Amino acid sequence: MHDLDALFNPQSLAIVGASSDPKKLSGRAIHYMKTYGFKGKLYPVNPSSPEIQGLTAYPSVSAIPGPVDQAVIIVPSTRVEESLRDCAKKGVKVVQVLSSGFGEMGPEGKAAQDHLVEIARQAGMRMVGPNSLGALSPSNGLFATFSTSFARGAAPKPGKVAFITQSGAFGSCTYVMADLRGVGMSRTLATGNEADVDVAHCIDFLAQDPETEVICASMESCRNGDQLRAAINKASSAGKAVIMMKVGTSEAGAAAAATHTGSLAGDDRVYDTILRETGAWRARSIEEMVDIAYLLVNGRMPANNKLSLVTVSGGIGILMADDGARMGLEIKPFSQALIDQLAVVLPYGAGRNPYDTTAQVATNPQLVVDVGQCILQHTTDDALVFYLANNGLAPLVFRDTLDALLKLKAAYKDRLVVVIMPSEAGVRAELEGAGIPVYEDPTRAIAAISAACQIRQRRERMPTFSISNQKSKLAIHPSDESKAKQLLRQEGIPVIEERVCLTAKEAVQAANEFGYPIVAKILSPDIQHKTEIGGVLLGLSNSTEVEKGFETLIQRAKTAKPDARLEGVLISRMVNKGVETLVGMHRDPVFGPMIMFGLGGIMVELFKDVAMASAPLDKASAHQLIDSVKGAALLKGWRGSEPLDCDALVDVLCKISETACKYPEIQSIDINPLLVQKSGVVALDAVISV
Amino acid sequence: MHDLDALFNPQSLAIVGASSDPKKLSGRAIHYMKTYGFKGKLYPVNPSSPEIQGLTAYPSVSAIPGPVDQAVIIVPSTRVEESLRDCAKKGVKVVQVLSSGFGEMGPEGKAAQDHLVEIARQAGMRMVGPNSLGALSPSNGLFATFSTSFARGAAPKPGKVAFITQSGAFGSCTYVMADLRGVGMSRTLATGNEADVDVAHCIDFLAQDPETEVICASMESCRNGDQLRAAINKASSAGKAVIMMKVGTSEAGAAAAATHTGSLAGDDRVYDTILRETGAWRARSIEEMVDIAYLLVNGRMPANNKLSLVTVSGGIGILMADDGARMGLEIKPFSQALIDQLAVVLPYGAGRNPYDTTAQVATNPQLVVDVGQCILQHTTDDALVFYLANNGLAPLVFRDTLDALLKLKAAYKDRLVVVIMPSEAGVRAELEGAGIPVYEDPTRAIAAISAACQIRQRRERMPTFSISNQKSKLAIHPSDESKAKQLLRQEGIPVIEERVCLTAKEAVQAANEFGYPIVAKILSPDIQHKTEIGGVLLGLSNSTEVEKGFETLIQRAKTAKPDARLEGVLISRMVNKGVETLVGMHRDPVFGPMIMFGLGGIMVELFKDVAMASAPLDKASAHQLIDSVKGAALLKGWRGSEPLDCDALVDVLCKISETACKYPEIQSIDINPLLVQKSGVVALDAVISV
Repeated sequence: MHDLDALFNPQSLAIVGASSDPKKLSGRAIHYMKTYGFKGKLYPVNPSSPEIQGLTAYPSVSAIPGPVDQAVIIVPSTRVEESLRDCAKKGVKVVQVLSSGFGEMGPEGKAAQDHLVEIARQAGMRMVGPNSLGALSPSNGLFATFSTSFARGAAPKPGKVAFITQSGAFGSCTYVMADLRGVGMSRTLATGNEADVDVAHCIDFLAQDPETEVICASMESCRNGDQLRAAINKASSAGKAVIMMKVGTSEAGAAAAATHTGSLAGDDRVYDTILRETGAWRARSIEEMVDIAYLLVNGRMPANNKLSLVTVSGGIGILMADDGARMGLEIKPFSQALIDQLAVVLPYGAGRNPYDTTAQVATNPQLVVDVGQCILQHTTDDALVFYLANNGLAPLVFRDTLDALLKLKAAYKDRLVVVIMPSEAGVRAELEGAGIPVYEDPTRAIAAISAACQIRQRRERMPTFSISNQKSKLAIHPSDESKAKQLLRQEGIPVIEERVCLTAKEAVQAANEFGYPIVAKILSPDIQHKTEIGGVLLGLSNSTEVEKGFETLIQRAKTAKPDARLEGVLISRMVNKGVETLVGMHRDPVFGPMIMFGLGGIMVELFKDVAMASAPLDKASAHQLIDSVKGAALLKGWRGSEPLDCDALVDVLCKISETACKYPEIQSIDINPLLVQKSGVVALDAVISV
Repeated sequence: MHDLDALFNPQSLAIVGASSDPKKLSGRAIHYMKTYGFKGKLYPVNPSSPEIQGLTAYPSVSAIPGPVDQAVIIVPSTRVEESLRDCAKKGVKVVQVLSSGFGEMGPEGKAAQDHLVEIARQAGMRMVGPNSLGALSPSNGLFATFSTSFARGAAPKPGKVAFITQSGAFGSCTYVMADLRGVGMSRTLATGNEADVDVAHCIDFLAQDPETEVICASMESCRNGDQLRAAINKASSAGKAVIMMKVGTSEAGAAAAATHTGSLAGDDRVYDTILRETGAWRARSIEEMVDIAYLLVNGRMPANNKLSLVTVSGGIGILMADDGARMGLEIKPFSQALIDQLAVVLPYGAGRNPYDTTAQVATNPQLVVDVGQCILQHTTDDALVFYLANNGLAPLVFRDTLDALLKLKAAYKDRLVVVIMPSEAGVRAELEGAGIPVYEDPTRAIAAISAACQIRQRRERMPTFSISNQKSKLAIHPSDESKAKQLLRQEGIPVIEERVCLTAKEAVQAANEFGYPIVAKILSPDIQHKTEIGGVLLGLSNSTEVEKGFETLIQRAKTAKPDARLEGVLISRMVNKGVETLVGMHRDPVFGPMIMFGLGGIMVELFKDVAMASAPLDKASAHQLIDSVKGAALLKGWRGSEPLDCDALVDVLCKISETACKYPEIQSIDINPLLVQKSGVVALDAVISV
């Protein structure tokens, strides 16, 4: 049994600090659970009253006669520790600390919070919060929250979508928007300060929770990247869609996030990468998140990217076709057989996809459904979208068409069928009940379908996630370019042949051995940006130039950086046939080594044409990484030139990934450039920081 | 008086083909106008009944005793011409043909439609349609339409937003979404086949219509680009926002558009350019269009890009800050004076923008408004956005805060104040009434504010629009590279010095005069892609190479294209110091000459880093054009290099624009490359097609 089971499915629940006043923060949870029917034992705990809102109250948790699965603590911050110890004594499994005044208040509060974690750990309890808004589980009547979102009189609809947020108010906003949209909830939780239980751990629970089909989550920060990845992977592998919002991407946003949660938001591109790789979808607005969840639970996951459109308005048909194309969906022409049959159903229709029934269908609206049926019959598993104008606002007139739609869906249970029209609540409810999601805005409907398709595709391409355990200590300390390259060579990465020369004579000798033209570079652990001080000489074509070059480099280095430790001059043959690429690794503090790839120079710097993938990288993901930069076209036979050796490039990317996993000391690797040639690749320059 | 005045403000209106049955297509208009109170004289026309829906009916329009401003024709297509002649006889000013069965049906229908236009023109009548859904003007009770959108019992709210669409069903969809959103309408029209009156002409009317503040329009095609530009310019100059949807951008969309309207959709990028230049906003969804219109009429145009955010949820504050940053808004830190005063109002607040009041404000929600007041007082004209969680769903609890908001807005009438929260209709109506727009989704609110800001900015930067009248005939026919360059030189564009050589001897002589290295190119009006046949030789370094080169080029041309007319070999000095750019002109069939600019090679082809502006181009817009490509960084001192001569580049762009306007024969110009140097620019190759 999952250790968060007692959080969402408690058989017995104590409310510590329960108030008799249902309007007070500390009275709301009891009030909600009484009103909405909590399916378990409910114990108010309050030392000053033997009865709270009609229930027997106890002076302490340990005074409760039976077992207590979960306790919710809503007392002033100064009294939280005492209450927590009381819970520990009783053997409570999960404690929710809704009280605030801890980590979010500064170092002192953080220390008190750490202390709470310690108490909970020692007692084998999981702790939610502090500063949490609490948990909900409408199907079993659990409303362990002081949120006012449920004061509107009706409990939110139970359903298959879970909402996990760090911020309580973000959660409230989401629950209400989802509820207004008709999305039923399985579980909700606001994790607050995440001293113990965090969003990742909740996703891990939801991944195996039979009541949950879709997981919506929002976070400002993540402290354990591996756990988050593992949890989302688990959910994706279980066929559950994860729709995630990660806020704090902008400067103002990140500054606000720092205040709000006390932990720094990570690099935004890293989150994009991790979410894509684990099969999650990153939503940019709450509405978008809810729209996608709505599609998946009221309809179903589209089987492929293909879309058949039936519309009573030509103009809206064109709009939907544009949207679909922009969002990566396929609106393919109909087969001749289908066109022929459609001509029988509706002689004046144009036969194209999107299929415009024209307004003439108004006199016999059921024909629209006949057209849809015809399409479902002649296509294998494409999604079918109806645009039905404003029919949903006239329920009486729409009755026959509605019945025909319900019948159609019943006959094609496995197909995604979506209706677009503004509609009255009753009409929408009937369609939703039959498995037909209803949208008002055409573009939003197409966007939700597109996102669902991408979730499916990501899931299919999900790289196997594993945490490498084979760790080593570095034998070579890569303090300068030469040693960095030695380390790379040792790890199996092709590096340009070169020699460290201490005298001009040695340099000339090396040059004669390598053959001209020659590249000479100053070598010093203290000079990283060699070109800036004129520390690189290209195309030296004879021994005199090499000899003079040696002296020039030493002189320039001494002038520019008098204190720099000079280790000599690096001599190598000049190679420039091929395409320059950038291969890099950056160890993200949260998600570990991230591998970067791009094409050299302008493309990286001006067009930011760089792609990222997390380590460990397998060959398939390395190929994907390369293909996801636009500049990759230059490697694959650009304008008639011969294609270059991408397999060798893939090999280097994988080896960089292995190296990063093997040596935790390494902070970053930059091979710039890695020259990709017709046969093979070669690293010309490298910087490794530890 | 505008010639469409009789369309939207008729004093008298005849409905030709009026039916006694209010449910029939031809009975609806009468029914609506009777129900919603048309403020003018209404004349049903029906030869077979002396009374229609309680009104005196007439056998023909000419039989109506008084004057008739407008006639609406809803008769079978075969009887439209007869009715139109009847209107002409009566001296009707505007006729709406709602009947279909014309241009949309093919060539025969198109001929009949052209005939209608002729009749209308001869009689001095303007004609809407055929195949139109009709016009609406709620404030004067004009509902000259057979749309069922208004059968729901209530007339749409009169207001300040006009909706003009080509497609009637697109219009219906938009009217209903706007109405549900609480956006009141001034005028609506579906132009249908646009045989005479088109979207552009309507915008021209609305630009001077005192009842209209915001113009929403949707089109699939445009046949007169100059009229559309002039109309939007007129509206923008009058301070009216134009929000436009242009559908038919994708292949499937464009194919559907072709069926739907019978006219080809233009190049999508051209529309982007034209709309941006005229100060309009291109919306991608109906919801987006309505959201922006809603902001402008219920709130106001933001005075600048600055945003102050007040939120009861830290998480939503971060989300809004992210959204704002992504969408080009500024969320600046507060001044110290403001921070100090905020600390007095709310001692536990963090003082940052976005300002998080935290949930503690729940016990005294009016404090949120005090915070807002403080911000409005300490800032000059920034917009202020409140995120107020779910308060709007609990009207009783929210009453005091609502009153405080209304008071605040009354004290700061000129500021844009926006509230974000799901809310009951009554709460929303009160806020809207006071000039405070209300959004449910935070991201949508920020997107609408951002779009409004961009409309304001575009309006401020609007290039002066003029149609050049100075037209000339080409003296040089630019049939080959040499003649194309001659033409450019004649128009004042710097071109590489070169000579057409008919013999190897002439080539050597020219080379000796120019100095080495030399470029030699085959010259033939029949060979456009010279490099593909090896028709360009670079870096010839002495007379022998030039002599041999001449023969090689002639030989290669003869082999590759035996029938090509060979005009000799072009000899010029090889110049390559500078950055290669692409300067082009393409004459769009709808909008005329479009000027294109980009950086050579990969940046254009791989990254599509090309910008477009319409001619005529002035210096300021030419500079803007250059700055809108990313690659422009290479011209402005990239990584420490010296900046290049952008003034000379601007001069060439302006001259290309002038040349295009002057010679309507020219279809396209391609200067590729135009080399931009430290001082000056020079065209190295050019193709002009006429």
